[in-house]
Amino acid sequence: MKKILLDENDIPTSWYNIQADMPHPLDPPLNPKTYEPMRPEELNVIFPMELIRQEVSQERWIPIPEEVREIYRMWRPSPLYRAERLEKALKTPAKIYYKWEGVSPPGSHKPNSAVPQVYYNMKEGIERIATETGAGQWGSALSFSAKLFELQCRVYMVKCSYDQKPYRRVMMENWGAEVYASPSDQTNVGKEIQQKMPDTSGSLGIAISEAVEDAATHDNTNYALGSVLNHVVLHQSIIGLEMKKQFEQIDEYPDIILGCVGGGSNFAGASFPFLMDKIQGKKPDLRAISVEPLSCPTLTKGQFRYDFGDNVGLTPLLKMYTLGHNFVPAAIHAGGLRYHGDSPLLSRLTKEGYMEAVAYHQKEVFDAALLFAKTEGFVVAPEAAHAVKAAIDFALMAKRDNEEKTIVFANSGHGHFDLSAYDLYHQNKIQDYEYPEQLINQAMAELPTF
Amino acid sequence: MKKILLDENDIPTSWYNIQADMPHPLDPPLNPKTYEPMRPEELNVIFPMELIRQEVSQERWIPIPEEVREIYRMWRPSPLYRAERLEKALKTPAKIYYKWEGVSPPGSHKPNSAVPQVYYNMKEGIERIATETGAGQWGSALSFSAKLFELQCRVYMVKCSYDQKPYRRVMMENWGAEVYASPSDQTNVGKEIQQKMPDTSGSLGIAISEAVEDAATHDNTNYALGSVLNHVVLHQSIIGLEMKKQFEQIDEYPDIILGCVGGGSNFAGASFPFLMDKIQGKKPDLRAISVEPLSCPTLTKGQFRYDFGDNVGLTPLLKMYTLGHNFVPAAIHAGGLRYHGDSPLLSRLTKEGYMEAVAYHQKEVFDAALLFAKTEGFVVAPEAAHAVKAAIDFALMAKRDNEEKTIVFANSGHGHFDLSAYDLYHQNKIQDYEYPEQLINQAMAELPTF
Repeated sequence: MKKILLDENDIPTSWYNIQADMPHPLDPPLNPKTYEPMRPEELNVIFPMELIRQEVSQERWIPIPEEVREIYRMWRPSPLYRAERLEKALKTPAKIYYKWEGVSPPGSHKPNSAVPQVYYNMKEGIERIATETGAGQWGSALSFSAKLFELQCRVYMVKCSYDQKPYRRVMMENWGAEVYASPSDQTNVGKEIQQKMPDTSGSLGIAISEAVEDAATHDNTNYALGSVLNHVVLHQSIIGLEMKKQFEQIDEYPDIILGCVGGGSNFAGASFPFLMDKIQGKKPDLRAISVEPLSCPTLTKGQFRYDFGDNVGLTPLLKMYTLGHNFVPAAIHAGGLRYHGDSPLLSRLTKEGYMEAVAYHQKEVFDAALLFAKTEGFVVAPEAAHAVKAAIDFALMAKRDNEEKTIVFANSGHGHFDLSAYDLYHQNKIQDYEYPEQLINQAMAELPTF
Repeated sequence: MKKILLDENDIPTSWYNIQADMPHPLDPPLNPKTYEPMRPEELNVIFPMELIRQEVSQERWIPIPEEVREIYRMWRPSPLYRAERLEKALKTPAKIYYKWEGVSPPGSHKPNSAVPQVYYNMKEGIERIATETGAGQWGSALSFSAKLFELQCRVYMVKCSYDQKPYRRVMMENWGAEVYASPSDQTNVGKEIQQKMPDTSGSLGIAISEAVEDAATHDNTNYALGSVLNHVVLHQSIIGLEMKKQFEQIDEYPDIILGCVGGGSNFAGASFPFLMDKIQGKKPDLRAISVEPLSCPTLTKGQFRYDFGDNVGLTPLLKMYTLGHNFVPAAIHAGGLRYHGDSPLLSRLTKEGYMEAVAYHQKEVFDAALLFAKTEGFVVAPEAAHAVKAAIDFALMAKRDNEEKTIVFANSGHGHFDLSAYDLYHQNKIQDYEYPEQLINQAMAELPTF
């Protein structure tokens, strides 16, 4: 059996909220001006109430609306693959599985949260939604979801990505979204930056600021975020819940679960339904391991403390692993992993020892992606390639130790819009970056203390 | 139920060979020099014997080797989708289904034949395989398949595509293929053309000639073709055989089956297992309708007669619908449909009235693709978009006539490498071309008579 499939009726009816099982409750988000704990109502300017409720909910199971499950059926349940050809190439006694999210129309796991986010906005009368996008995966997912519920969608796309990845922009336009290069002339913050820095190639921080301003200053418009926050992680639990059913079907349970981490929603979504068993003491030996780039080593080298979610300092402060919000990572091809912070839930579970983290150089990650393409066929996104690299490493360790480990990784998306990076690989031009110790120290020194 | 899925064990164990059910046998291929019927052995210089046997076999069922079924499991059985959201947008009483081949690693139906072709070559000791590719779908599929069986692969890619679609080239390189812009300096025919026409942007005819010369002049090297021939059509029957099982599962049978036709293997593969029922008198009302571009209207405007398969006149002559092998179609974005001829089997069944054909302008085809993206989510290739357009048209006719028709179309691949065309669409730059009557008349007048 190559693929473990589920029936559409097996799509879970509730998301799993790990806040119900956290050994210690999360520290609250803080107001960016007063440093006082935020009240949920303060967020209602840019988020619908239902998402704010989910953000702080302590309920273990949160029902998935039938309208959302109906849309999930367009590509879910996603297949769990056994990577037999990769196992053979590695001559490992380990079994390697991967959960393949590249089957969604936008090509990644992102619509798992974009669809319910748009749905709840629609239910609360919102007619227009604004967001930022870097590499384009989140912007694509939100454009797709907005069209399905007939909301207007505005995407602020970081200027260098807008110029380098025109096809991601075209995907968003196919689904009816308006896409602007950021900084744009559509917001005050954008216009100011254009004036001050006419040659800037933009940043995710600027794009977030534009999208938030857009949402705050337009009628019936809200903002949507693609990772980090608890409600995003909640929606992504659909990945891990399906995986659990798929492993039950073949009467197995993973020893090691792996996934790439940028903001953390992909790997949190895949791993938390399994971590529930570990926290509850049923699976004490389960290892859940985040994989990140060595050039942006948030979990492996960052500190667990309060920091802003964006680079500008407008968003609430979150208690998380961070490299400092002023840290600007090197221009690696895995744009989705270039984030200074991390999901507070995933950060806390890492801090308390329930989760681990490893980091890799860029070139070895691409080596792994190529071996994967040549054995399993699929060309994966540079972000997902980090998880591939870790799966190969742990499979080789199992071979060294002659252990029949069961390894599974979250394969978060295809690389059909990342082929310029693969082209550089073939030209031997994929660069590794030194561990940016000085930059990180500097960014950490600039953090507010209180 | 949105997707009708089959289990991996439901992958058919035999391909369906419609030659066993043809009302009249095919006319034989003719030697391009003598115009005498070809003997199968003459083809053994560039094809393995097993494929030559399949080319002329009159057996109804030809077993699929277990090694091929094992590879098919990487993405097969492919899903049959109910296009409910499209139906709703059209307010049609018709049911619209589509068979989605975009799930394969190369992204189209092409590996259904590339995998067995490479397999039989490998079994007969061939170590290297050469082919041509235009838009890149076939070259990708053959590169992918060659890597799985560890054969070397050489692809001659039409120069203008090589320049315009670098990411298709990178896909092929990811799977280890050598890709050369054609005309190249790797063959005599390529060198001659480079000298005579240094500024040429190449053509599929030139690329075929290079690949055939490469195969004929290198040890242990064979040639592979991605459409037109009977053995390719045979392999593609896996599409229609799965579809029949999927319709049985929901206790339905299509009234109308649609697919785009370039060389014909995609639609022949999807429709022939159903046409078996029509030929055998069990389903007299079934309509099987080829969809082609108005700028290359082989079935709707061509003549049924002998012609060369390539533009240069090196391949055997086949009895088929043709526009004349000297006809050069306009540069539409559906590169895979720019072929002067057609599968002899599909041509014959069209000539005898078992199949029909319709043709569309380019712009209305893209309009259909955009409506599809906005309702069903997937961004399809410009080739597949022709079938989408026809499905919409027939669904609207069913609405006009208030008939509950069941319509199914072969959705042959995704459009992730065709977004430059979608970009032109958004800029209102998709061009329609007049029916090229004069060019076709001229090309037909140049055909040999005998």
